[in-house]
Amino acid sequence: MYEGVVQDLIDELGRLPGVGPKSAQRIAFHLLQADPTDVRRLADVLIEVKAKVRFCATCFNVSEAEQCRICADPRRDPTTLCVVEEYKDVVAIERTREFRGRYHVLGGAISPIDGIGPDQLRIRELVARLSDDQITEIILATDPNLEGEATATYLTRQLRPLGLRVTRLASGLPVGGDLEYADEVTLGRAFVGRQNAP
Amino acid sequence: MYEGVVQDLIDELGRLPGVGPKSAQRIAFHLLQADPTDVRRLADVLIEVKAKVRFCATCFNVSEAEQCRICADPRRDPTTLCVVEEYKDVVAIERTREFRGRYHVLGGAISPIDGIGPDQLRIRELVARLSDDQITEIILATDPNLEGEATATYLTRQLRPLGLRVTRLASGLPVGGDLEYADEVTLGRAFVGRQNAP
Repeated sequence: MYEGVVQDLIDELGRLPGVGPKSAQRIAFHLLQADPTDVRRLADVLIEVKAKVRFCATCFNVSEAEQCRICADPRRDPTTLCVVEEYKDVVAIERTREFRGRYHVLGGAISPIDGIGPDQLRIRELVARLSDDQITEIILATDPNLEGEATATYLTRQLRPLGLRVTRLASGLPVGGDLEYADEVTLGRAFVGRQNAP
Repeated sequence: MYEGVVQDLIDELGRLPGVGPKSAQRIAFHLLQADPTDVRRLADVLIEVKAKVRFCATCFNVSEAEQCRICADPRRDPTTLCVVEEYKDVVAIERTREFRGRYHVLGGAISPIDGIGPDQLRIRELVARLSDDQITEIILATDPNLEGEATATYLTRQLRPLGLRVTRLASGLPVGGDLEYADEVTLGRAFVGRQNAP
């Protein structure tokens, strides 16, 4: 319907997650009228990100070098390993400044519906890292949903026999929330996980 | 917070209209994991669109040539000119297949709040086109909102003294809608514009 290359742009934009046909059209018209240097900058960063960004050879975190900044940092505690699903989880945990150990990025969670089993995740690589005798605790920080819980359960069964301490992030009430708005499962978990008042 | 170039990508994506910080992050992570050739194709089309697309010298429609496909098409009726705000309006009208004349794209609508007056629109160029004696009717197809109406009123005053037929798209009930849900102004216009039943 649109002039050739404009339609191509709308099609390409429409392939991005969360960008429907209407949004793709809106973005395309914006770009048509935008300063060419701005559009060029976006194109350049797209090319650059694919050229520069790779995955850390140790933990599979996003990295611009052979090893990511966290694996390369000698001040990070080498005895605790936090297992997460995705790169964005690393960023979320780093933001808390509560964890000073290292990470292992699985690249997803077990989800039979999506055809993702343990073999599609970087579990073999995780087990290989454990032959390094420094690691004493594995913190399973997969998402608190069905797939994340299944992945954590699977990993616990695999890792506990190796004599490691395997922990899971606490479930409970979100800080700043209202108790009455918590769902039953969360509230139930908060009871089960109750601790002595400080 | 993210590795340098990843943050750059999130920033650039976040500048697009309708893409908030969360969406920008989601798109960036998608692109990190996407096939490099797919990302390259998006980057290429961005560069290509800015290199190839310009505005028709006659009607200011988006075009890949000196003249757009519509202006270059000898089968289009040269006596009627449809004045629209934007390129996307041309596409919307073309989709109806009801109009076989030519277009003039103003590049917006009069909006004092946004600092857009008649001089910021391609009204001078419109008047210049009218010296071509073929044009006998001007259809004002600006948006049926405050700015579009103001623009249509302004243009009517400018063009009618030139002895042309100046028309405006009909206002009324949208087809397929419910009468009870129409707003008062639309319903009022539908009364004023009532026609003999066929």
